[in-house]
Amino acid sequence: MSLVSDPRLIIKGDNLKSEVILRVVFVGLRLGSDMSNSIHNGVIICNPHVPSMKVDVLYHVGLDTDTTDLRKQFGDVKFVIMGGSPKRMKKIAERLLKALDVQLPCGTGLANIACASDRYEMYKVGPILSVSHGMGVPSISILLHEMAKLLYHAGCQDVSFIRLGTCGGIGLEPGSVVITTSCLDCAFNDYFQLKILGKTVRRPAHLDEHLVKELIETAESMKPDFNVVAGKTMCADDFYEGRCHQGYFIVDVEQGRLDGAICEYTEEEKMVFLKKAYDCGVRNFEMESLGFAAFCQHLKIKAAVICVTLVNRLVSDQISTPLEIMHAWQERPLEILINYIKNQI
Amino acid sequence: MSLVSDPRLIIKGDNLKSEVILRVVFVGLRLGSDMSNSIHNGVIICNPHVPSMKVDVLYHVGLDTDTTDLRKQFGDVKFVIMGGSPKRMKKIAERLLKALDVQLPCGTGLANIACASDRYEMYKVGPILSVSHGMGVPSISILLHEMAKLLYHAGCQDVSFIRLGTCGGIGLEPGSVVITTSCLDCAFNDYFQLKILGKTVRRPAHLDEHLVKELIETAESMKPDFNVVAGKTMCADDFYEGRCHQGYFIVDVEQGRLDGAICEYTEEEKMVFLKKAYDCGVRNFEMESLGFAAFCQHLKIKAAVICVTLVNRLVSDQISTPLEIMHAWQERPLEILINYIKNQI
Repeated sequence: MSLVSDPRLIIKGDNLKSEVILRVVFVGLRLGSDMSNSIHNGVIICNPHVPSMKVDVLYHVGLDTDTTDLRKQFGDVKFVIMGGSPKRMKKIAERLLKALDVQLPCGTGLANIACASDRYEMYKVGPILSVSHGMGVPSISILLHEMAKLLYHAGCQDVSFIRLGTCGGIGLEPGSVVITTSCLDCAFNDYFQLKILGKTVRRPAHLDEHLVKELIETAESMKPDFNVVAGKTMCADDFYEGRCHQGYFIVDVEQGRLDGAICEYTEEEKMVFLKKAYDCGVRNFEMESLGFAAFCQHLKIKAAVICVTLVNRLVSDQISTPLEIMHAWQERPLEILINYIKNQI
Repeated sequence: MSLVSDPRLIIKGDNLKSEVILRVVFVGLRLGSDMSNSIHNGVIICNPHVPSMKVDVLYHVGLDTDTTDLRKQFGDVKFVIMGGSPKRMKKIAERLLKALDVQLPCGTGLANIACASDRYEMYKVGPILSVSHGMGVPSISILLHEMAKLLYHAGCQDVSFIRLGTCGGIGLEPGSVVITTSCLDCAFNDYFQLKILGKTVRRPAHLDEHLVKELIETAESMKPDFNVVAGKTMCADDFYEGRCHQGYFIVDVEQGRLDGAICEYTEEEKMVFLKKAYDCGVRNFEMESLGFAAFCQHLKIKAAVICVTLVNRLVSDQISTPLEIMHAWQERPLEILINYIKNQI
């Protein structure tokens, strides 16, 4: 199936106002076409040292294999939902509780499972974990290592990792939802370039083709009153100044903002960069997708990224939308995911 | 003064047990010798767009120039203390309150200034801000941009940024404190390599020579019952897998851990890497110093890094020390800083 020209890739909301949105239909899909066949059902890890460890301490989520029966507590997990903000991940858990009609035992409420640490927050709603990952690839990477080990120790099967985030959009009405088709770095490459013991290696960073397709179809079937777009996501290493995954910085250029404490380029140069990104199919900027995708592909974990845009970077860098409206927008990726999960469980 | 061979660079605690510690005296100092003369008294920013902005929204600390009188609220700030964990930064603020005998108005208590966001936490104790920065260079970079703009808007003068952290040590008894003399990336370079609009630029990342020297002298004068070492700090981009600031990954090698979800090298290869780092004067690993130092030097903000080691990486990757002892160790960098601040205000 050629998704590239599939008109269903844009779901037009009732509040569609911008001509720019109409062009999004031409954004190319670049998914790991050979990935889905090789998905392993169980969560595996690529570290021969872990099985022989007496105790495995997952420092940053405050758990270990000694004091917690991970298999009993987490063995049923099928979905790990990740997002930057701890408050938002708690709200997501509360919303899932209602939406999926999960009954907690009498006299109990949701509690932060990772409370022994204060690096992340984690909530469990039936087979779903809702976990905060902080900001940037290093922060989400630590969580990914510990979540993979947690689910490996718990013997989980057929797990999907889905990042729900906020982002800056390009050429999209603020409040639009972008379902990521592929992740790029600031040099428009869709891989991590690695050096392993002196040998340069490119680590692919493809999302799971079938999961992404199902999420797009779910969004389409909902006929939502907001725009949903399938497009490429550019992963920056900074909100104001961007560090490139290819080994150099593009100061203030990766995200191309003008409102940092350091800015050494002009409005015109910013627009050239943003338009180049737009022409390459990039529809949003965020700060975690490339590391997230590369990690999940390496461990054959199904992965997807759904983000809501808070600003159209072709118009403004700063956000002027009232907070209440932005909070309402942040529900949108979750609405799609809840519909998807309801069909799966 | 040649600090390289200065025997005062190691302050031996009463509990000194390891021969390895004795060698630390030979760790070279590599500070920006030409920095101190060019320190600007006020906090400046390098962005011509900011002064003309009608409202500057500091998203991630939940403040803006419209609804808060930043000059009135923050104009007296002289020290910004940063650390990864929000709980720790709150505890630090509570400890500062007692140590500096700061009286809050009757009926008030410490409150998180950044509570409108949940990305960071910020507390104010007289002229001191205690702020959490999350994990990794991208996370601390966002905070640095917003703190610099905050203090610029507030018209602050003669401000120092000091990162107090936890870290992995090399060849040091756990619980030792490392005062960073210079920051290195995983390729042993003491600079960021940047590309600004296609042109490769190296951004220097030197800490403030005089501030570091004063902190070392303060620690020496305290005759503490723990080891204090002046040494180089290696800044990794991941706790488990390390991304290199020079444009490539050294998977599992930057920090050289064996306990991640992915590990594709041997114990022997890990030890070769750690010993090479030790021989180059590296005494600890953490995840923020290089970005922190480069940012501060670029804006001529005085900066220093003091971290306590939780593990000796030449012996173990996982931490076996009881939590209470680790919490007590985390007080140590602050003890030095409190003594320093008492002499300054």
